[in-house]
Amino acid sequence: MKTLSINDFRLENGNKIHSLSLAFETFGKLNENKDNVIWVCHALTANANVLDWWEGLFGILQLFDPKEYFIVCVNSIGSCYGSTGPASPQENRRPLLNNFPGLTVRDAALAFDIVREHLGIPKINILIGASLGGQQALEWSILKPEVHRTLILIATNAVHSPFGIAFNESQRLAIQADATFYDGTISGGRKGLIAARSIALLSYRSYSIYEAKQKDENHQLNHFKAARYQQYQGEKLAKRFNAHSYYRLTKMMDSHNVGRKRTSIELALRRVKAKTLVIGITSDQLFPVEEQKFLAQNIIGAQFAEIFSPYGHDGFLVETEKISIIIEDFLHNNFKKFKPTVFRTTVRKTQLMNLVK
Amino acid sequence: MKTLSINDFRLENGNKIHSLSLAFETFGKLNENKDNVIWVCHALTANANVLDWWEGLFGILQLFDPKEYFIVCVNSIGSCYGSTGPASPQENRRPLLNNFPGLTVRDAALAFDIVREHLGIPKINILIGASLGGQQALEWSILKPEVHRTLILIATNAVHSPFGIAFNESQRLAIQADATFYDGTISGGRKGLIAARSIALLSYRSYSIYEAKQKDENHQLNHFKAARYQQYQGEKLAKRFNAHSYYRLTKMMDSHNVGRKRTSIELALRRVKAKTLVIGITSDQLFPVEEQKFLAQNIIGAQFAEIFSPYGHDGFLVETEKISIIIEDFLHNNFKKFKPTVFRTTVRKTQLMNLVK
Repeated sequence: MKTLSINDFRLENGNKIHSLSLAFETFGKLNENKDNVIWVCHALTANANVLDWWEGLFGILQLFDPKEYFIVCVNSIGSCYGSTGPASPQENRRPLLNNFPGLTVRDAALAFDIVREHLGIPKINILIGASLGGQQALEWSILKPEVHRTLILIATNAVHSPFGIAFNESQRLAIQADATFYDGTISGGRKGLIAARSIALLSYRSYSIYEAKQKDENHQLNHFKAARYQQYQGEKLAKRFNAHSYYRLTKMMDSHNVGRKRTSIELALRRVKAKTLVIGITSDQLFPVEEQKFLAQNIIGAQFAEIFSPYGHDGFLVETEKISIIIEDFLHNNFKKFKPTVFRTTVRKTQLMNLVK
Repeated sequence: MKTLSINDFRLENGNKIHSLSLAFETFGKLNENKDNVIWVCHALTANANVLDWWEGLFGILQLFDPKEYFIVCVNSIGSCYGSTGPASPQENRRPLLNNFPGLTVRDAALAFDIVREHLGIPKINILIGASLGGQQALEWSILKPEVHRTLILIATNAVHSPFGIAFNESQRLAIQADATFYDGTISGGRKGLIAARSIALLSYRSYSIYEAKQKDENHQLNHFKAARYQQYQGEKLAKRFNAHSYYRLTKMMDSHNVGRKRTSIELALRRVKAKTLVIGITSDQLFPVEEQKFLAQNIIGAQFAEIFSPYGHDGFLVETEKISIIIEDFLHNNFKKFKPTVFRTTVRKTQLMNLVK
């Protein structure tokens, strides 16, 4: 993991982070023309190691292979995987925890841009993000339209919806119900975090996928599979994340609104100069496809693709094969003008190599 | 409020409640033939005062008018509106709270039947329930098929779904995250309950209704309308309910499975002898219409009606006008063979009076 330190990073709300660390990973090599960059913005609880958590899309012999691409992923500001967040010590003092300043998606995007300059990348060939990562990628494309050549937005939106905010608030209410959240320790709010993750899962998946995977065989009175699944997933997250970063990052998501201080959402979207692909998942309850259609309608020249999947919002992690095909097709059509049918079936890997050269 | 006391009420899980109080309300008068009864099973956090919480359907000049009907509603076992629950003192001892025994929908139905016998009602003309109340009404119709003439099931199911259980478990995890839930007081778990209600709301409503009602006009950084709405609704419930009853009643809902100890769900549904109407709400995320279609397909002679509404599961409380029309139509077709069109438009109230005589 690499780290970049910045002094006096000014936030959108007027606060300042005196010493901001940004942790990031790079995979592969930047080529001579500096045009083989794919930059990934990760989602709520992920980290900079994109080969780990998006393995169907990134990795050896995957669509984005580090042998071809220079892959960059920065841990979001506010997270707990290396970049400065509520649990980080501030200038050798105790972590700010509940007193950590509020962050916006715009703050995250500006931080990424500082890493880009540090890495000496004048233009980013492909910027990709899903969910909160998609919100950050979009915001960055509006803040710095000249920097981005291609933008791929998956299961994301232009402004976070009231339903999304209500889901996040429910999770924060669960964390706040846990009095240890205020005990001044990094591990405070652990039980609240377990509940929060359990709540979030409900928005990531769908009725039908629970029906398919969490149905009990027996007709018992208690200890249902679906309940144990919620507990298990909650505890699993609590082992690797903390309630303070979780709280702040859900607030960051709530703040997402590309129209803020920019006349309107539609006009903000028209600032994007990158060739844009927007992908939606039919069963996504949290970021319904209407949101991605809206993005595609308002970003000039954008293309829209829909994935039929029962996995809901989680589809962006599960349906990597379908996503790979769509992206391949899009990159190909935009960059090379081959016939998509040929491209899809026979010459997938070879052709893509041409793209990045 | 009337009360009936029962000694040694045996529960499905083998436990016993030594002294069970059942609180109930009646409105109107039982006629001579004892055939003007409408019995209501209330949902999760409601009470026996059905004129209060289902006012579009019950009340003066409503479809079910106490001038015509003898309306009965019993507060569910486990609740906190008069019937014995976790917060009730047991034989002059302290409330059992977390040690209160587990309850099932079948327990609730058997308790209702004891009140029915106490009231001297040999047959119930119409039994109606929505959500958890629908689960109880259905279970009762299977336990005592001879007792029920007409059954109206709204936004309910034959077995609680894995998605429904996952929603309930998330709410319980939020309550359990609040350490005061274990402090031995009736008010313990209050903050957890606030979060739980906020979570439940997400399943009662829909993305589009939040979009329509909770969208902010301004492009602010924080304090979003949708978040304040969740807090408000959570606090509103916490003023009138307690976390212990809430916890137990969500567990009761999880236990709902008409097939338990009865070979299969389908065979259990075939035991129902009442003429049955099943109503579903198109946008219901928690009890999707497929569940009501399944009921209608498996209850002999049942009719199915669908309400187009943006209100989701909450539609059963909001869409009382549409529900009234459907029920009126159903009762009419079943009982009198008038033409529904005539009935609907011109002679609504008059005709219905004939029904109950």
